[in-house]
Amino acid sequence: MKISKLVGRREKETPSGASLKSHILMLRAGYIKQIGAGIFSFLPPAQRVSLKLQKIIREEMDAVGGQEVLFPVVMTKELWDMSGRYSSIKSEMIRFKDRNNHDMLLGMTHEEAAVHMMMNTVTSPEGLPCMIYQIQTKFRDEARPRGGLIRAREFTMKDAYSFHLSQEDLESYYKKVFDAYVRIYKRMGFKNFVAVEGDNGVMGGKVSHEFMAVTPAGEDSLIICPNCHYSSNSEVAVSVKEENDHTAVGEMQEVFTGNAHTIEEICAFLETDAKHTAKAVCYKTAEGGRLVVAFLRGDCDVNESKLSKLVRSELEFVDVEQYGLYAGNIGLTNLQVPEDAQVFYDVSLKGLENFVSGANKKDFHVKNISMSRDFADVEFVDISLVKEGEKCVHCGHKLTLTRGIEIGNIFQLGTRYTKTMGMKINMPDGTVKEPIMGCYGVGVSRSLESIIEEKADDKGIVWPMTIAPWQVHFCPIRIDDENVATVSEEFYKKMENAGIEVLYDDRNVSAGVKLTDSELMGVPLRVVISPKTMANSQAEVTIRESGEKLFIPINDLISELKMMIEDEIHEIEKDL
Amino acid sequence: MKISKLVGRREKETPSGASLKSHILMLRAGYIKQIGAGIFSFLPPAQRVSLKLQKIIREEMDAVGGQEVLFPVVMTKELWDMSGRYSSIKSEMIRFKDRNNHDMLLGMTHEEAAVHMMMNTVTSPEGLPCMIYQIQTKFRDEARPRGGLIRAREFTMKDAYSFHLSQEDLESYYKKVFDAYVRIYKRMGFKNFVAVEGDNGVMGGKVSHEFMAVTPAGEDSLIICPNCHYSSNSEVAVSVKEENDHTAVGEMQEVFTGNAHTIEEICAFLETDAKHTAKAVCYKTAEGGRLVVAFLRGDCDVNESKLSKLVRSELEFVDVEQYGLYAGNIGLTNLQVPEDAQVFYDVSLKGLENFVSGANKKDFHVKNISMSRDFADVEFVDISLVKEGEKCVHCGHKLTLTRGIEIGNIFQLGTRYTKTMGMKINMPDGTVKEPIMGCYGVGVSRSLESIIEEKADDKGIVWPMTIAPWQVHFCPIRIDDENVATVSEEFYKKMENAGIEVLYDDRNVSAGVKLTDSELMGVPLRVVISPKTMANSQAEVTIRESGEKLFIPINDLISELKMMIEDEIHEIEKDL
Repeated sequence: MKISKLVGRREKETPSGASLKSHILMLRAGYIKQIGAGIFSFLPPAQRVSLKLQKIIREEMDAVGGQEVLFPVVMTKELWDMSGRYSSIKSEMIRFKDRNNHDMLLGMTHEEAAVHMMMNTVTSPEGLPCMIYQIQTKFRDEARPRGGLIRAREFTMKDAYSFHLSQEDLESYYKKVFDAYVRIYKRMGFKNFVAVEGDNGVMGGKVSHEFMAVTPAGEDSLIICPNCHYSSNSEVAVSVKEENDHTAVGEMQEVFTGNAHTIEEICAFLETDAKHTAKAVCYKTAEGGRLVVAFLRGDCDVNESKLSKLVRSELEFVDVEQYGLYAGNIGLTNLQVPEDAQVFYDVSLKGLENFVSGANKKDFHVKNISMSRDFADVEFVDISLVKEGEKCVHCGHKLTLTRGIEIGNIFQLGTRYTKTMGMKINMPDGTVKEPIMGCYGVGVSRSLESIIEEKADDKGIVWPMTIAPWQVHFCPIRIDDENVATVSEEFYKKMENAGIEVLYDDRNVSAGVKLTDSELMGVPLRVVISPKTMANSQAEVTIRESGEKLFIPINDLISELKMMIEDEIHEIEKDL
Repeated sequence: MKISKLVGRREKETPSGASLKSHILMLRAGYIKQIGAGIFSFLPPAQRVSLKLQKIIREEMDAVGGQEVLFPVVMTKELWDMSGRYSSIKSEMIRFKDRNNHDMLLGMTHEEAAVHMMMNTVTSPEGLPCMIYQIQTKFRDEARPRGGLIRAREFTMKDAYSFHLSQEDLESYYKKVFDAYVRIYKRMGFKNFVAVEGDNGVMGGKVSHEFMAVTPAGEDSLIICPNCHYSSNSEVAVSVKEENDHTAVGEMQEVFTGNAHTIEEICAFLETDAKHTAKAVCYKTAEGGRLVVAFLRGDCDVNESKLSKLVRSELEFVDVEQYGLYAGNIGLTNLQVPEDAQVFYDVSLKGLENFVSGANKKDFHVKNISMSRDFADVEFVDISLVKEGEKCVHCGHKLTLTRGIEIGNIFQLGTRYTKTMGMKINMPDGTVKEPIMGCYGVGVSRSLESIIEEKADDKGIVWPMTIAPWQVHFCPIRIDDENVATVSEEFYKKMENAGIEVLYDDRNVSAGVKLTDSELMGVPLRVVISPKTMANSQAEVTIRESGEKLFIPINDLISELKMMIEDEIHEIEKDL
């Protein structure tokens, strides 16, 4: 490809409206162009990368027996009514009427279409297990699209659905897909990704894993044990809290605390520390409007995701005054709440002695409360956020907190869709069985941007060789020199003939412009020839990632480049 | 692929709701499944074919310098307002509001997105010419979806857009794409396709060609000259009409014709033939409601498409009585019409003498009219349909009438979009230029079904080797025989290792079921081994298309199959 004809424009300036490094670089380097909020066109270099990602995904899905299919983008209300999701999914799903006034929708996911394909198609046990997958455009009407392709409204996704006759079979297949995902992300060039538990099953959910590109720019917060590799989305992470002191228990005592309401203010006022206090956090349930009171040790924070699952409802802000409670003075003792209210005690309170909590009376707190003496009967639940430095429940090592971008997920779905939609397998003993499903997603466009986010440096994008839009960026300097021009054209053709994917900067512009553009665009190997290098019968090869420069005899250039490309690919794929 | 695990089901019965051969076969052979009107899922075999079609298209587009991109399925009203098409396209375009009440649409085509990508991206003349293309899902809300993928609402399409600085440059590139299209369809295995003129330019339109798979099942009617290869959609086809007799001219004479109104009735009543009559066909314009009267020789029919272009409006049915005209008695003489009415005389009337036409008086006609004497001043226009047997305007040979399915089109667009959207190239002389565009579509899913329509026989689908879902359908008979089972597994592995794409019928079912299924599915080569063939150390290879059977020594099977596959591909691609 000659850069003079390449559709795309390199920009020096940071474009307005973008703040994420990878998003800025994709705009600046001419990879994407925005058409609307969260809607982008892919320019040729981005589409080249996307096709390489898709090829990797196809190979790995095929290797675990996947069969590629294609589901429609537009589906009918009737199909989604079968699972009940037409009404349960809210405004992130696009709905419209067709010319005949039929209700239609844009698919954000294809469980219904997958079961529809399988129903009355695979009806005997010999057909299972099987897995079908597609790579398709999806649209999700995100409330706040951000970060370019990271949270776009339209995106490319691989989604896969497997069908099994037993939970054991699903679990064994799930492990295979897990391994395939690890290979996919390694082959894409990710160095820093983890599979975190999406939901640990304790809360009655199903087993799932989120594959996360670890980066400070991520939207998700992750808890990781550097020792035993326990890792979890902080929404569901668990930990061992620092043990509570077992100090002697004094008598309960009501104290005036006036305007001291926050834990910080109370600690200052009573000269204690947060670990010797209990705080209350209140909500109301979105469904039913019931009051929810959560008590935690003063140094802990509520994990709203865990609490929300416990009460089986979204949580909303509540004005506690309407229940006769005093914000800043709510506590464990003398708590008066409506009959339908729910009160929870976090595990961080377990064994806590001699602590301070609100007196449920304006401007007063209570000192010297003892959980074992005064609240011996309460049941503890885990509703607190895990914090950096807390201990791993598996190995006791200190946990670290980081952030990640979800680039894939795998999920043991169960029979939710096959049951509601009525997919049946006729067993040899005359009975029928609803297959158990797994589903498996890879965000193609999101992976594309996430790998930029992981590898880019302050000069621009850095592509891994396995997915780079081109393998070599060929930058002849002083192309107005006839000798350089002739040799360049010759080498461009030689590279193409040798099967090297080459972007050829054929413009008559300064060395500065060419080199800056090549760093911005991120092609792994840059080849420079100039009157100077040619005088030594050499070409200068720069490795984009390390910045390392090699001078290669011009006669060996093609064979050396081919070797370097193979080595780079081998390096990425070596431990698969 | 083992057929026991293949998602898909072969059916004997013709499914309800399908009448087109290819549509029925795709449903029966487990290639597609309907989700809604004109909306289908692709099962694994169809997706395999689709990916092969896409590969051919990509290679040919890349060979003419195409750069692959990806435009979004969902676009904004703002973008489409720039070209004016948001309002000019009617109910075939899906419109909806997003969660923020913004007007959005589903793309049926991507001219606006293509110009959007190029605008402010390619601004200097060095960047042109260039061509960008995508392969993407599109949705068109057809009023009457039919024929499976032939007229589906959701479909896969390759659309390409080229940009040029001069008409000459566009024309020379257009020719290249034309040739690329010929290669594409040949490589897909089409034997019987033509490129017809979509619009001959005479009417003020632009040059375009429609690529048509010729088949009686087609929706479009085509005029083809078997001698000089003139070919045209009948909507715009031209011909030389049979010359009119130059008989002696008698005196005009009004005659009572009573209830004889149609040309047939008049001819019977007056004992003349249709070639000696003139008929009137009336319409009103959809915009403005003006009366339109078209006169043609009695044996000719109006080409509404041509007439509609002449009056620059859609045509609607009109009740002529409201203009004081008598249906069945309208004629050339004494015609009284409103001032804004338009009257047209078809070229078939040129030189007509002694003919009959309505008298514009209830129950009367006029005999012995002469165009040269009585209507010497009228201008003739071409508003009649070309009929089988009329003569080619280029070589005089008799034209034939056939039907076709449009599988692609190419179009010289001009500056319609670059002008309205404001895309500008800064020329070295300080002026600015709006690029001239071409656009080029290939219906991927439509081609997939059309090639079935062309090649299928009464047993089922017949795939060309270049696009077949598998190259070999391996059907061991009596797989319950241990020897057969062992040898089959061994050969299945050998074929896969040799890079042969093989569908392996591993089921323990009768020979009849296996062979019928293989004929239905249409894989080009079928390999049968059975206790009988093995006794002779042979395998039986059947060529699906010809039915020819070969007995091959089992030790040569793999190498023979590889040779046959290569020969078949070579046969299809030999004259490219």
